[in-house]
Amino acid sequence: MEKETSRIEAFSDAVFAIAITLLVLELHVPPIEAASHQPGGLTAALTTLWPSYLAFGLSFFSIYIMWVNHHKLFKQIYKRSSPLMFANGLILFLATCISFPTALLAEYINTSYINTAVALYTALFVCINLSFNLLWWLASKDSSLLRPGLTSQHIRAIKRNYLYGIPIHVLACLLSFFYPVIALLVCACLWTYWAFTSGKLDMVKEESTS
Amino acid sequence: MEKETSRIEAFSDAVFAIAITLLVLELHVPPIEAASHQPGGLTAALTTLWPSYLAFGLSFFSIYIMWVNHHKLFKQIYKRSSPLMFANGLILFLATCISFPTALLAEYINTSYINTAVALYTALFVCINLSFNLLWWLASKDSSLLRPGLTSQHIRAIKRNYLYGIPIHVLACLLSFFYPVIALLVCACLWTYWAFTSGKLDMVKEESTS
Amino acid sequence: MEKETSRIEAFSDAVFAIAITLLVLELHVPPIEAASHQPGGLTAALTTLWPSYLAFGLSFFSIYIMWVNHHKLFKQIYKRSSPLMFANGLILFLATCISFPTALLAEYINTSYINTAVALYTALFVCINLSFNLLWWLASKDSSLLRPGLTSQHIRAIKRNYLYGIPIHVLACLLSFFYPVIALLVCACLWTYWAFTSGKLDMVKEESTS
Amino acid sequence: MEKETSRIEAFSDAVFAIAITLLVLELHVPPIEAASHQPGGLTAALTTLWPSYLAFGLSFFSIYIMWVNHHKLFKQIYKRSSPLMFANGLILFLATCISFPTALLAEYINTSYINTAVALYTALFVCINLSFNLLWWLASKDSSLLRPGLTSQHIRAIKRNYLYGIPIHVLACLLSFFYPVIALLVCACLWTYWAFTSGKLDMVKEESTS
Repeated sequence: MEKETSRIEAFSDAVFAIAITLLVLELHVPPIEAASHQPGGLTAALTTLWPSYLAFGLSFFSIYIMWVNHHKLFKQIYKRSSPLMFANGLILFLATCISFPTALLAEYINTSYINTAVALYTALFVCINLSFNLLWWLASKDSSLLRPGLTSQHIRAIKRNYLYGIPIHVLACLLSFFYPVIALLVCACLWTYWAFTSGKLDMVKEESTS
Repeated sequence: MEKETSRIEAFSDAVFAIAITLLVLELHVPPIEAASHQPGGLTAALTTLWPSYLAFGLSFFSIYIMWVNHHKLFKQIYKRSSPLMFANGLILFLATCISFPTALLAEYINTSYINTAVALYTALFVCINLSFNLLWWLASKDSSLLRPGLTSQHIRAIKRNYLYGIPIHVLACLLSFFYPVIALLVCACLWTYWAFTSGKLDMVKEESTS
Repeated sequence: MEKETSRIEAFSDAVFAIAITLLVLELHVPPIEAASHQPGGLTAALTTLWPSYLAFGLSFFSIYIMWVNHHKLFKQIYKRSSPLMFANGLILFLATCISFPTALLAEYINTSYINTAVALYTALFVCINLSFNLLWWLASKDSSLLRPGLTSQHIRAIKRNYLYGIPIHVLACLLSFFYPVIALLVCACLWTYWAFTSGKLDMVKEESTS
Repeated sequence: MEKETSRIEAFSDAVFAIAITLLVLELHVPPIEAASHQPGGLTAALTTLWPSYLAFGLSFFSIYIMWVNHHKLFKQIYKRSSPLMFANGLILFLATCISFPTALLAEYINTSYINTAVALYTALFVCINLSFNLLWWLASKDSSLLRPGLTSQHIRAIKRNYLYGIPIHVLACLLSFFYPVIALLVCACLWTYWAFTSGKLDMVKEESTS
């Protein structure tokens, strides 16, 4: 059976690639005046930008993980449907949005508004998780859309892998009102865990060829 | 017959993907001063940005619909011609332009210039509709450009689907001088209708394999 | 013989697509203060932006023509060589640069510096022409890089098509010191002529299949 | 054996293409006031921008070389692994970062902070080199990921080609504290050397077909 989703993948790849690259536009070079009026000069001026670097690094990493997961799901999806197209549109919309709470985080992490900034940041990832679950639920509901030979065991394994992301991100979002730094750490840990366990991708791959 | 339009599709996908992602650059993080001088703090400062969110969401949605439609049309086009290349160029030009009236809408929706802003916004969609009609008219005029096996019934069905977009967008454009909010609602409803009826895409797909 | 240049084409397509879309970032929405202090309001404020629209339209059109030509040349190139990779890199570099003289043109077309702005703009197109000639010269020098079956007559026809672009752009560049508006018109006419005669693309296509 | 890395290549191409094109956003058109208050007018105002042109040209060239090298490595990689995906993610992250030290270089090359700016710029290229070495080390460690028929001699040849980049970039980074201009020249020379010797690419190609 021919794979019909390649143009969707190409478009999604391009959107993820642009969203991940535009993040760098939020890193602003300190103006010469700022550098020359500080005791430490340019080095000190660059050091005070650490919230921007942190937010940039964190968001780059999260979009990369999103892309790896998108890649993983679409390897199993062979046909299109209108609901699928729009669940994918929702994922792309949220991926595009990431740069806004990222810039917000960079601006407010050092202020008393850190809670609001982290809450918004983590809330976006709750939405992203929900939209990935929606995509896979829509795809798995109709097995004619999936790769032929995909077992129902696999379908469930993928579903489980996405489901536990929701409570953890919700927890991070709630934590952000009390311990915003810990909320960010929870997200970073979850993403790192996903990065290391995406070897499941290869497991699925091998089984499909046997 | 080999499909010769794949590099045109790849280039168009990239332009749509960039146009859709650049929209987020119009969301500006409120500066710390703005947040700390408002009674509600950062939350209040973010709330006053609603025109930007609305314009961003509406334009993201409209470009996504444009891409889905472009995808749908080019599935039926197998050969290139010079007029086709330039009708496609016109579509891409207009898609690229969208970010300008979107930013205008965000800036002026709360002012007495809302009519001008909405009129320009809806006028752009009149032009986009005309250019999609032009593309399909140029393609359907010469059946040697189309997918072999495409029936004339299908060709007409696609033509009809695009034609009724013109009067509705013209109506929205005229309405914008009197009831600009209703004009935007008319556009949003039309796009939602198109999103839900793009199942015709699947209908065309199935028939082609039988 | 397998075509080995597809990843180069994909990368080039992406660069052209981004360069063409970034142009719109030079269209700046007039701030509310500007609109409310002018007698004609927003409409008048938008009208005074005509140099930006003109420069944007002209440059969009020129990059689209460049992409069509790049597409046309690479249809005939099947193998890579290091010199070819770097001639292509030069073309992409110059395509990326276009947004700078475009913004310059928009800023200075209404001032006494119009000559300098137009001279720089047209000089860039002299360089672009030279780099396209260089690419085709490098490709045609070594027939093992070209599509098998391409006749030497065709190779010469393509070469001629690019060669006459140089004197015309040089003429436009010289004219810009005396009659800058006419210099821009000369460029626009040449590009329109190229747009209409790119039907040669189809001629080459047909012969290759016979 | 089927090549499984094509979607990774497509995503990487898009990131490189965007990173290379966004560099131009750092070229700012001189405002009319700046031009009219200088004795030389616009020409003089444009001439004082030379640090921006230099930084733009150098970084464009370096990203292009990175892309050529990425292309070269992935021609030999046929299968994915999780570590490989993340080594590639690191390369893309660093490629995206380039625009920041580039803008820094353009801003500070004329000031007493030139050492810091050049040190940061060259330090980034040390990291890029390390990440390319990591990618190839991870790929070559597990020959089942590589193109079938790739000899161990080739694998070592590629490894050597990347290894000597590290000491040279480290040298440039150290030099930048004393002779920043020479440090930049060392980088430029190395990249030019790589550009001219990427003919090894063709050597590898030919052997693989024989």
